[in-house]
Amino acid sequence: MTSDQPGRIMAGEMAQQPDVLRRLLTEGAPAIRETARAIAARRPRFVLLTARGTSDHAALYAKYLLEIELGKPCGLTSMSTTTAYAATPDLTDVLVITVSQSGGSPDLLASTRAAREAGAITLAVTNNPSSPLAAASEFHIDVLAGPEQALPATKTYTAELLALYLLVQGLRDADGTAAAAALPELAERILQRRAEITTLAARYRFAERMVLTSRGYGYPTAKEAALKLMETSYIPALSYSGADLLHGPLAMVDNISPVIAIVTDGKGGQALQPVLDRLRDRGADLMVVGPKPQVDAASAGFALATEGVPENLQPILEIIPLQMLAHEITLARGQDPDAPRALAKVTETS
Amino acid sequence: MTSDQPGRIMAGEMAQQPDVLRRLLTEGAPAIRETARAIAARRPRFVLLTARGTSDHAALYAKYLLEIELGKPCGLTSMSTTTAYAATPDLTDVLVITVSQSGGSPDLLASTRAAREAGAITLAVTNNPSSPLAAASEFHIDVLAGPEQALPATKTYTAELLALYLLVQGLRDADGTAAAAALPELAERILQRRAEITTLAARYRFAERMVLTSRGYGYPTAKEAALKLMETSYIPALSYSGADLLHGPLAMVDNISPVIAIVTDGKGGQALQPVLDRLRDRGADLMVVGPKPQVDAASAGFALATEGVPENLQPILEIIPLQMLAHEITLARGQDPDAPRALAKVTETS
Repeated sequence: MTSDQPGRIMAGEMAQQPDVLRRLLTEGAPAIRETARAIAARRPRFVLLTARGTSDHAALYAKYLLEIELGKPCGLTSMSTTTAYAATPDLTDVLVITVSQSGGSPDLLASTRAAREAGAITLAVTNNPSSPLAAASEFHIDVLAGPEQALPATKTYTAELLALYLLVQGLRDADGTAAAAALPELAERILQRRAEITTLAARYRFAERMVLTSRGYGYPTAKEAALKLMETSYIPALSYSGADLLHGPLAMVDNISPVIAIVTDGKGGQALQPVLDRLRDRGADLMVVGPKPQVDAASAGFALATEGVPENLQPILEIIPLQMLAHEITLARGQDPDAPRALAKVTETS
Repeated sequence: MTSDQPGRIMAGEMAQQPDVLRRLLTEGAPAIRETARAIAARRPRFVLLTARGTSDHAALYAKYLLEIELGKPCGLTSMSTTTAYAATPDLTDVLVITVSQSGGSPDLLASTRAAREAGAITLAVTNNPSSPLAAASEFHIDVLAGPEQALPATKTYTAELLALYLLVQGLRDADGTAAAAALPELAERILQRRAEITTLAARYRFAERMVLTSRGYGYPTAKEAALKLMETSYIPALSYSGADLLHGPLAMVDNISPVIAIVTDGKGGQALQPVLDRLRDRGADLMVVGPKPQVDAASAGFALATEGVPENLQPILEIIPLQMLAHEITLARGQDPDAPRALAKVTETS
């Protein structure tokens, strides 16, 4: 899986994101709407989300959408309760959504089968309609990202986010395509700003650790960016919701722990303000991905023009500069983002 | 809050843990049983757990118990959905358990009030029966740990675990006191082994990062130990479920990232075996807290005699050597475990 030019595969897949988003909004949206309608007719009362790694961050994004927009209590599955402890919960009226790029992990498959037997409505969101997971689930949504070959997932993540957004809009009998229409073009503009990312990457060339933080809709982005940084550059990257950061790990943040804050343009970003103020008071090295005034008040940043895109869709844009940053830092360190050590594309845990 | 002798306050509170557990099993248990009976009569179908920081790890432990022993689908609350986004989910038939040492955090209070208005059965588990959170909740469980003054929480964590264990046993109309009877004595014996911990602490004197891992019932211990290490010693400590570790961050583990694995004596420990094998294959520096044969197969460790204590109660013992380790590493680094920088005992986020 190594390429002649380090990071070529990951860069190529990042660059495909505008097209993938476009494809989902045109070819993908009608089928998602149909699936959402069929699920809504079953009137689920609770939602459980099951996923691992990058897809777990897409699941967390969906949790915010489902709670805020749909008013459904949600939980993330602790998979070992089923796979190790053989728990048999009563899942009547529960929608279980399993998110997986490959649809091939044995533990996700076992967990989904157990959920279906326990009475759940099961939905798989994958990038492979002929995967075992898609077959095992009552419903399936294809994120249409095309084959992903780089080990760090990029285009399947943003595709999962958009597919889950369209699903939740469909569950409340709304059409999400209009609100999302600007995303492909905005993603393209972000991808053109590689020079800015290269400059930012230089800041972290010798970083021994990083802290990522956000609140609300931006929180899954903080977690995904931390994973991306770790699995490509091996820099220990810790992610916290802004509120949790104040509960303990803040002791670790000082002028040797750079902080990256994802500041959404909306209520989550507003709720993060006291945390940003506290970080500035401590003299933290703070990089912001968010609105230009926030970037200007920080040590560095990447100003994001969202041009009317609602806060709950901004995570699809916010992760892109951070994917690019992980890629550039890794190159700057003389490593190959395409081939992190010890990673397999389909993780076989049971 | 600094003391003449660094770490004296934290050490004193750790040492109180056997007595606190004893008190809960005698004075505390009947009231918890009564509360559990009243909640069970309301027949909750779904459980949401709300907490931050250390108490969030106690909530995660309860999630495993509730799913495995009670078969109730569970979720951890994303608090900002209520506090920042004013989500109004339908919480009919939902039990909302809020866990908080102080019972004083404004965001937990707001979240609990909103849950009660949305129709939830509300239960607060705190160390302060006269706290605003206890007053705002329909039910309250007092963990009876006595005042906690060190900023890193220790005795309130193990007390929360045992109180939540007794609650879940009560919800299934069982008495948990017999299974837990050996805990105070076993905790005492662990606390007497400080010399072993001092030796282990020397390994990490110059560590620049640490990785903690476990599966199942041991996973909350991995998260809590990581937080304890970070908030006392400021070493970046990353925690992963064993399965998630294989999904990416493993690339970061090598002979410069020591790993601490919590191996429960039971199904979670068994499910962790492939991860331990993988770590050994990579030549990772692996310390184990768990059964003696597991410790002997690792680079170092702390052998835990559980003497018939069931796996679901072992987390109450497993965290103690790790609290002691955080304390000793911090002293070895010339810092004061009682007074981490930037921490307040009641965190005021809203």
